[in-house]
Amino acid sequence: MAEPVRTLIRGTGLLGASIGLGLRAAGAEVWLSDPSPTAEAIAEDIGAGTRVRGEAPEVELVVVAAPPEVTARETAAALLQHPEAAVIDIASVKVQILAELLAAAADETNPLSREHLARYVGTHPMAGREKSGPVAARGELFTSMPWVICPAEDPDTGEQLSGPEAVETAAEMARILGASAHRMPAATHDESVALISHLPQIAASLVASRLQEAPVGALALSGNGLRDVTRIAASDPNLWVQILSANARPVVEILYGLREDVERLISTLEAPTAPGGHADIAQLIAEGNAGVVRIPGKHGAPPQSFAVLTVIVDDKPGQIAAVLNDVASVGVNVEDLRMEHSAGHQVGMVELSVLPGRRDELAQALRGMGWKVVLT
Amino acid sequence: MAEPVRTLIRGTGLLGASIGLGLRAAGAEVWLSDPSPTAEAIAEDIGAGTRVRGEAPEVELVVVAAPPEVTARETAAALLQHPEAAVIDIASVKVQILAELLAAAADETNPLSREHLARYVGTHPMAGREKSGPVAARGELFTSMPWVICPAEDPDTGEQLSGPEAVETAAEMARILGASAHRMPAATHDESVALISHLPQIAASLVASRLQEAPVGALALSGNGLRDVTRIAASDPNLWVQILSANARPVVEILYGLREDVERLISTLEAPTAPGGHADIAQLIAEGNAGVVRIPGKHGAPPQSFAVLTVIVDDKPGQIAAVLNDVASVGVNVEDLRMEHSAGHQVGMVELSVLPGRRDELAQALRGMGWKVVLT
Repeated sequence: MAEPVRTLIRGTGLLGASIGLGLRAAGAEVWLSDPSPTAEAIAEDIGAGTRVRGEAPEVELVVVAAPPEVTARETAAALLQHPEAAVIDIASVKVQILAELLAAAADETNPLSREHLARYVGTHPMAGREKSGPVAARGELFTSMPWVICPAEDPDTGEQLSGPEAVETAAEMARILGASAHRMPAATHDESVALISHLPQIAASLVASRLQEAPVGALALSGNGLRDVTRIAASDPNLWVQILSANARPVVEILYGLREDVERLISTLEAPTAPGGHADIAQLIAEGNAGVVRIPGKHGAPPQSFAVLTVIVDDKPGQIAAVLNDVASVGVNVEDLRMEHSAGHQVGMVELSVLPGRRDELAQALRGMGWKVVLT
Repeated sequence: MAEPVRTLIRGTGLLGASIGLGLRAAGAEVWLSDPSPTAEAIAEDIGAGTRVRGEAPEVELVVVAAPPEVTARETAAALLQHPEAAVIDIASVKVQILAELLAAAADETNPLSREHLARYVGTHPMAGREKSGPVAARGELFTSMPWVICPAEDPDTGEQLSGPEAVETAAEMARILGASAHRMPAATHDESVALISHLPQIAASLVASRLQEAPVGALALSGNGLRDVTRIAASDPNLWVQILSANARPVVEILYGLREDVERLISTLEAPTAPGGHADIAQLIAEGNAGVVRIPGKHGAPPQSFAVLTVIVDDKPGQIAAVLNDVASVGVNVEDLRMEHSAGHQVGMVELSVLPGRRDELAQALRGMGWKVVLT
């Protein structure tokens, strides 16, 4: 693996500070700057890098980790201030930022030129948290996560703008941080995230928003289904305003389809005994079945390729450890683990996903060790 | 705890067979019947009870575990065939089944009378799986889960129909199976599940259905957000047709609100730079924030009351066990556990939720044992 390069991170929120922590852990020299002196100081305190005091340091890479709405402006400034450095941004949308940079380069009153863009690469690490700010940062945030690399090209002519050196620097940084680089055009990225990131966020917020006025007695019946569907509804409104408005077109195209499905479902439920009504509902659920099996599993494995067994444990310290200890003694790898729980009880269920060929052997061994194991 | 009573389970799918397994484990005598000889035989084979051969056995409790669309008919038949027994159903909707029973009792050509309903109680165990059939059954399915008990009352007069003895038998069965009984009127139940169960199912199916035509490259970027939102989209279309059409009115009332929010979001995203657009988007996300914090946590604890720390582990047998072992040696209870993973890598992150007062102590201890721990 190549040496990590001297890096300046402009913007020390959750992502910027996490990149700093990760690069520092890999031995890089990292400089930090942020319009908020507090955010900058916290990032330095947690070890994400050294604050820029006075003159800008000479660096080989600038990472613009600013909010989406100021990313293009910050990127242009970085390209002009650091004439030798590669400059990457990490915003969740890519087409609009490139369009803003091209507009600036075409504007004769702006010092930015198209040649500067040879050192620019748009990127997007597919990682985040429901929390924000440098306090929530962690160097391992990108471990095992996809990191999209979008070399800049002119959307009208197809001309490549990003130079190969800058693209390689971006990809190398992703690798150093433990991410897997996925290269694609900006438009493909934006359409992809509209579907696999922005739509789920909207759906989670729509469902959670309906819980605002729910009676407490109804909420007491909540199970894992509701919890799973709404988990990401705890996200930052200010950030999502910027993401959704910067990716408005691909998102709205998907929402047209969603609206049509909702309309059809409403018509059906307004007259549930009318002819064809049942078929309409069944079709919606069946289409969901068909879609969900297409989501890849862990490590890119085919979806749903693991067998599941459930162990009943008491809810006291050491029980899950004891189960997994015994699993390890059998030599079986746990591919995924879910805890099931609900209000009111002190017993838990641990669902273990393992390779199908190992399940029965593991269940038998665990039962032999006194565990209550359920195969399904 | 009272002795489990002699029970007949009519319908040996996932839920019926699970009830049989659980009651048998508690020492009850359980009889089984199902229109499908195969399902009946499997349920008997896995130990859920004894098939009825010839005459109906004398029982104190009949559990009707049939599909929602035939539940009222099966319940009426059970009330007539077992003149001494309490009869409960476990369908996911309650108002319509009671209405069908009242209609049958009011029909002079039907042998069912209102007096029979003194032995009837509607119930709904809030438990299920993405799999169905007796093969997926497990006696622990209801452990720690809410079980709603809806004593029958006349919706027009408010007259109590279910007798106290039948209600107590139903609640006792729920307790024997490890569930927590929640008593409420049928209409309250149906409105509650429309919100906390049927709406999430619809949202998950709507999102997953949009993935049907998604390019593979987009799906490769999938993270835990999409996985969580769509997990329950793998549900059975035939069952959900019956549930949604039997609870059409409460569900459609919620969908009107959802449709309004989708419409507003579409208008905003069609003109994302128009005045007020940003505020509209921020409001949707903020309303989601406000809703999601109302979902109760494990064991009815206040939501989000746990502190989280993350441990980085290699993806090989025994690593999670080793972590939890060391956690146990510190004497800290793991309240929840999540594994984070994505395509392409062999390293995993284990998020542990613990009591906030124990987090720092635990992190320090784990680091001392050589673990890579991230606090956030």
